[in-house]
Amino acid sequence: MDYQYLEDFHPGQVFESEPLTVSEAEIIEFAEKYDAQPMHVDPVAAQDITGGLIASGWHTAALTMNRFITAGFYNPAPGALGLGCESLKWPKPVRPGDALRLRLEVLSVRPSAKRPGSGVVTNRFTTLNQNNDIVLEMVSSVIIARRSA
Amino acid sequence: MDYQYLEDFHPGQVFESEPLTVSEAEIIEFAEKYDAQPMHVDPVAAQDITGGLIASGWHTAALTMNRFITAGFYNPAPGALGLGCESLKWPKPVRPGDALRLRLEVLSVRPSAKRPGSGVVTNRFTTLNQNNDIVLEMVSSVIIARRSA
Repeated sequence: MDYQYLEDFHPGQVFESEPLTVSEAEIIEFAEKYDAQPMHVDPVAAQDITGGLIASGWHTAALTMNRFITAGFYNPAPGALGLGCESLKWPKPVRPGDALRLRLEVLSVRPSAKRPGSGVVTNRFTTLNQNNDIVLEMVSSVIIARRSA
Repeated sequence: MDYQYLEDFHPGQVFESEPLTVSEAEIIEFAEKYDAQPMHVDPVAAQDITGGLIASGWHTAALTMNRFITAGFYNPAPGALGLGCESLKWPKPVRPGDALRLRLEVLSVRPSAKRPGSGVVTNRFTTLNQNNDIVLEMVSSVIIARRSA
């Protein structure tokens, strides 16, 4: 796939990834390193707290990024960088065995005033499980080179 | 440390964690799983793109969560859950060998209208490196049980 530039993105574009299944072992491994709260690392304790083990929201975000980077619809020219998120929500938890897929919608595309060779693409990320429950929703921006640069 | 309840948090409280050093190996390991872009996984390619390897912003977020959970100032009663972020930014990148510490400020504490036994604490997370550069800044809310519940 050729590199993408700012000019390749347009508001209203929608992309959807294949699903990725997350295991109990991976949920625990991630949380032991980064978010070792009982509902993320201890299946027995999690029964009382959240009706069973749930993934750290940061793991859900990392899995969303995996879907974004590997889905085949995002291949920007080198130098593209995430700037941050305007909002990030976890409406439903991710549980062992869930199959997550990403739905991405381009919300806006604008040249950068500060960096004439680049522009900013703002996307809505919606991560869904196999029941179409939304497990993550965020609006996030990335800086991408212009083709003319 | 005893469990914390909503009544234990007050706007203006500030907490700071000890630092945690992140290695090149850990940066690459995280990114190979979740965010395998050249500037996160390939030190040679990263030289041209970002002047050397930089951590995935989602790794920086996960390391921030590690500091939050293990610093000793956050030990809520079981059932506390992150609701999401109002904003999340990565003003400067994290590089191998950086020592990250978290500065947390409680912005607001309010009872929940929907869940009478709980309330919402909104915090500003600021993650700093050894040079006091800000590598992550976010405003994020968590639901926490009331003591009277």
